[in-house]
Amino acid sequence: MPTLLAFLEYDGSAFFGSQIQKEEPSVALALQRGLKSMGIASKVRFSGRTDRGVHATRQAVSFEVPYKKSDWGYFKEELNKKLFPYLRVRRLYPIREGLDPRFEAKSRAYRYLLSEEPLSAFASRYVTHAHLGDERKIQEAMKLLVGWHDFALFKKSGSQEKSTLREMRRCWLYRYRSYWVFYFEANGFLRLQIRLLVGALLKVGRGEMSLEEFKEQLEAKRRFFCEGAPPYGLYLCKVSFESSIWEVRDRNH
Amino acid sequence: MPTLLAFLEYDGSAFFGSQIQKEEPSVALALQRGLKSMGIASKVRFSGRTDRGVHATRQAVSFEVPYKKSDWGYFKEELNKKLFPYLRVRRLYPIREGLDPRFEAKSRAYRYLLSEEPLSAFASRYVTHAHLGDERKIQEAMKLLVGWHDFALFKKSGSQEKSTLREMRRCWLYRYRSYWVFYFEANGFLRLQIRLLVGALLKVGRGEMSLEEFKEQLEAKRRFFCEGAPPYGLYLCKVSFESSIWEVRDRNH
Repeated sequence: MPTLLAFLEYDGSAFFGSQIQKEEPSVALALQRGLKSMGIASKVRFSGRTDRGVHATRQAVSFEVPYKKSDWGYFKEELNKKLFPYLRVRRLYPIREGLDPRFEAKSRAYRYLLSEEPLSAFASRYVTHAHLGDERKIQEAMKLLVGWHDFALFKKSGSQEKSTLREMRRCWLYRYRSYWVFYFEANGFLRLQIRLLVGALLKVGRGEMSLEEFKEQLEAKRRFFCEGAPPYGLYLCKVSFESSIWEVRDRNH
Repeated sequence: MPTLLAFLEYDGSAFFGSQIQKEEPSVALALQRGLKSMGIASKVRFSGRTDRGVHATRQAVSFEVPYKKSDWGYFKEELNKKLFPYLRVRRLYPIREGLDPRFEAKSRAYRYLLSEEPLSAFASRYVTHAHLGDERKIQEAMKLLVGWHDFALFKKSGSQEKSTLREMRRCWLYRYRSYWVFYFEANGFLRLQIRLLVGALLKVGRGEMSLEEFKEQLEAKRRFFCEGAPPYGLYLCKVSFESSIWEVRDRNH
């Protein structure tokens, strides 16, 4: 059966996470139900899991559809009517059959939004309110992150990743309107890794953790800090693939 | 005991409405719990009820506090920490003891936000996606609304208002960025009145209801349409009082 790759956006505050969790609302369950109501019974394969409260503007998911050729634009619109209001397909591509984005993705990127100003009742789902501290110290610490590292001391305790080695390709802190944005791009991330990194970086910014201590934890020598920043400000914002996965470079929908 | 008037903002999608409803999350329950955690056991009196999913940027609520003179700015900040994330006190004023905003308010105003473009997963809590139709027809119908009317055919069936007469002071439709905004200001509103009005106005805009039919329903002669627009786009945005309610014109907090 033909396989489609969908790029999803979702409001993480409406779900208990991306993966199916009994009857709790999850992104996977909502997508499967949406497909089912269109007569499509298919597993859905995510490029990676996001936890409860974590958002996505570009999560990649693949699934099978029972028809070869279709107007994928119309298909997308019909599916989005089913997924409304907190989940939406932004783009849809036919890809080589059976591919699983979890193994095909060559990199992922996240943004973490932070505001030093009190948040309105309408923004607090989507931004974290916290004091940044010294921006330069944080930028300095973020430079240390680039490259291959054993992030063993920056992962959810008990989570079962085979290897804790990851390559941080790019990461920096920048200003966007009234927000601070932490940007991280890597070949992959461990569970809770970014929220632990942001938590530690804020400690560095506030002078509650030295650069040496941050370095020591980054080298998996000693844990100085292990409290993840809240999920509100975290967005999976990019998943990249080798061009070989595209079956036929249709106009995307 | 001294009485305070608070102007609240809240994300209606996080509550089953403003009023207490058994153990369901309501704005009143959240506010009472917030006050209680500061050692204040007080009833809370709303200027009017908002239904499930309906937002507010300026809901007026009064309650008693056990101390005469205080730094209300500090009080507000402490209370907001308890109310986080979907409810927030914007302003706080001491008023004459025991006043109930429901009876003291001289007017209320609502905005209803509509987008003709598909909404992102992050906007669909806060804006309604619908086709507007002919703007001029809608403006014409809205002109008919100004003044005293018997809105008996524009209220929730079974709701128990003593009188269905209300004075619509101002109302019009305008453009704000990519949204259409319906603005309504009156001495008061019946339950579901605005959502029924917006639903009917959209029918007029799309030519599915004539101006004469709208007029007939407005004169409580005949009901042509009774389906309320969704709650997502609706905001209680202003509650006005006679200046006499202010006990002492403290700097507001």
